[in-house]
Amino acid sequence: MTLDPGAGASQAPAQETSGKLHHSIGRFEPELGGALEDVTLAYETWGEMSGGADNVVLLTHALTGDSHAAGGPCREHRRGGWWDPMVGPGRPVDTEKFFVVCSNVLGGCSGSTGPASVDPETGEPYGMRFPVVTIRDMVRAQKRLLDDLGVARLALVIGGSIGGQQALEWAVEFPGFAEKAAPVAATGALGPQGIGMSEIGRRAIMADPDWRKGDYYGTGKSPEEGLAIARMAGMMTYQSAPGQWERFGRRPAGRPALYEGLGGRFEIESYLHYQGHDLVGRFDANSYLYLSRAMDLYDVANGYDSQEEALARVCADLLFVGITSDWLFPANEVRGTAEKAGRAGARARYAEIDTLSGHDAFLKDWPELEEAVTPFITRT
Amino acid sequence: MTLDPGAGASQAPAQETSGKLHHSIGRFEPELGGALEDVTLAYETWGEMSGGADNVVLLTHALTGDSHAAGGPCREHRRGGWWDPMVGPGRPVDTEKFFVVCSNVLGGCSGSTGPASVDPETGEPYGMRFPVVTIRDMVRAQKRLLDDLGVARLALVIGGSIGGQQALEWAVEFPGFAEKAAPVAATGALGPQGIGMSEIGRRAIMADPDWRKGDYYGTGKSPEEGLAIARMAGMMTYQSAPGQWERFGRRPAGRPALYEGLGGRFEIESYLHYQGHDLVGRFDANSYLYLSRAMDLYDVANGYDSQEEALARVCADLLFVGITSDWLFPANEVRGTAEKAGRAGARARYAEIDTLSGHDAFLKDWPELEEAVTPFITRT
Repeated sequence: MTLDPGAGASQAPAQETSGKLHHSIGRFEPELGGALEDVTLAYETWGEMSGGADNVVLLTHALTGDSHAAGGPCREHRRGGWWDPMVGPGRPVDTEKFFVVCSNVLGGCSGSTGPASVDPETGEPYGMRFPVVTIRDMVRAQKRLLDDLGVARLALVIGGSIGGQQALEWAVEFPGFAEKAAPVAATGALGPQGIGMSEIGRRAIMADPDWRKGDYYGTGKSPEEGLAIARMAGMMTYQSAPGQWERFGRRPAGRPALYEGLGGRFEIESYLHYQGHDLVGRFDANSYLYLSRAMDLYDVANGYDSQEEALARVCADLLFVGITSDWLFPANEVRGTAEKAGRAGARARYAEIDTLSGHDAFLKDWPELEEAVTPFITRT
Repeated sequence: MTLDPGAGASQAPAQETSGKLHHSIGRFEPELGGALEDVTLAYETWGEMSGGADNVVLLTHALTGDSHAAGGPCREHRRGGWWDPMVGPGRPVDTEKFFVVCSNVLGGCSGSTGPASVDPETGEPYGMRFPVVTIRDMVRAQKRLLDDLGVARLALVIGGSIGGQQALEWAVEFPGFAEKAAPVAATGALGPQGIGMSEIGRRAIMADPDWRKGDYYGTGKSPEEGLAIARMAGMMTYQSAPGQWERFGRRPAGRPALYEGLGGRFEIESYLHYQGHDLVGRFDANSYLYLSRAMDLYDVANGYDSQEEALARVCADLLFVGITSDWLFPANEVRGTAEKAGRAGARARYAEIDTLSGHDAFLKDWPELEEAVTPFITRT
């Protein structure tokens, strides 16, 4: 499997099917140590920047997302942009009004520098020699991209899941930069159940003999089974028990399962098999290790004495959006983070989406999502 | 790894450290097909059978349990019996009053015939040629053991998780046999989230190259990594999110983790690593596949037009025990099954244990468990 090594802007075509661009932000030093000599971020934009550069919205993507937030299906993105119903002319993130930017995160595998990228010092892919990157590193890298694009201020930063962690970290790390920040389905720190589920996925990847301690690039193989299992574990955390009862129940599989079952196959199983193998074709296993780890490690308090101290830095208007059936970032914890921010002096609102869709609601419950975020986005 | 092949009673010593006995129930035909020529069940007993054989209690164990329900730590069971605080003189299952029997389930790996046992027709371990076994098969096999022991009637059958499924199935399959049946932390059928978590574990086992399609016996290896990951996934379903916050939080690991972390290790991770590898030394991976599958497949309605029709057969007094923070068998679903049984005409009670311990409460919250079940056990 050949993965986009995150080519520098000078080597990459300026425009691909999706409109993806690449930009080098140069040397980058992750906060937990190590250094990356030449970091490239892949990004896409929609709309036009205003003369005063005061209409910029940054979208921050989730674990297996990428820069393609908006747009219909294309060759590279057969399902279209991951937030397409939310972004476009007349949509909540109105591209007739806003200049919208979305970049693939540092450590990702969709054009930005990550473990699959070639280390210029060795000429070989980084693999597990890639340094640990954090949500703060992702945000700092995005800041360098925005600086280079001439963006002096963000009207809004918004995203869900680890995109929500990034939105929150933006408000803490660069307090004067974003006017509004909306963490969706994200809290100040992931709980142990979420960390445990992440770790099950990482163990599955690392136990796959094709992982080869991360040095599988160029072998013609990759830890497909391990990554598929990691994805299955992830999918469990993205959905709710009552939602799965409604959607799958105990119905027998309506499509072929990966392998013969022991006494038959349930629909939930063939669904998980399908989701697992679908990710294999479009995602790098090492990136999965690093990005899931960034999710686990994130605590808004990191580098401060407490979450309160960190949140007291915030100048942006905050909107936290919780999802009632979310068990990765439970709604009561999202609300708790909003309340903590409020107590710390931030202007923090909380909106809740009442749904059985679980964590994934921020990628599918469009009317409810629109209702939750539009008043915040349009408010002046 | 050498596993007890489930030797017949004639070959096995009558008494082992734990007091384990073996009994052949002969040829057995599982309900979904296939045949086992000579099935052995390992079992243990406590107390004395009364002259009228009317004081017999059957304990049914959970997924990775065995016949050693009671007793202190011994060579084979360094933690002692899995329900020891509940079983003994003066305890809720009072061995001065009751003759208590617990057998390792059909398909298990602690002395009863299972995938690791030698197929007498080939002289080789069954591996995946072992037929699919169901909760009903386990119960039918237990019935043959009890018949051979001269038990004409059960005063009580009680167990948790898949032990609870067995207790319920006893009441449905042999309506006149048990006076009381107490399914603890079990419902009429597992939901899709539970099935999904089971399947993640099975995929991890089957993806392990040492699994060799189940034929790893005698190779000097077994799918240790896969079984450990399966156990980790299982452990997640046995605990609750708030319970894990309380017990582990986001604390760094206090003991060595299995491998170097990406940016450190959380306590929940080293706990999962430890639990995973602890199971490897005492459990057969193929048995894990078969028994987890039996849990998934169980629906009290199997073979009937509906759960109601099945439950209408019940003559036993039923006590369902739900655990408030259980997400494998959620309390509201346990209560729902109890209510359904009541509507079907059964004498069904429901008791609830309010705890953060999750599903595992039936193996650790002793005072609460005792309070929930003792009135039912002692009631005449």
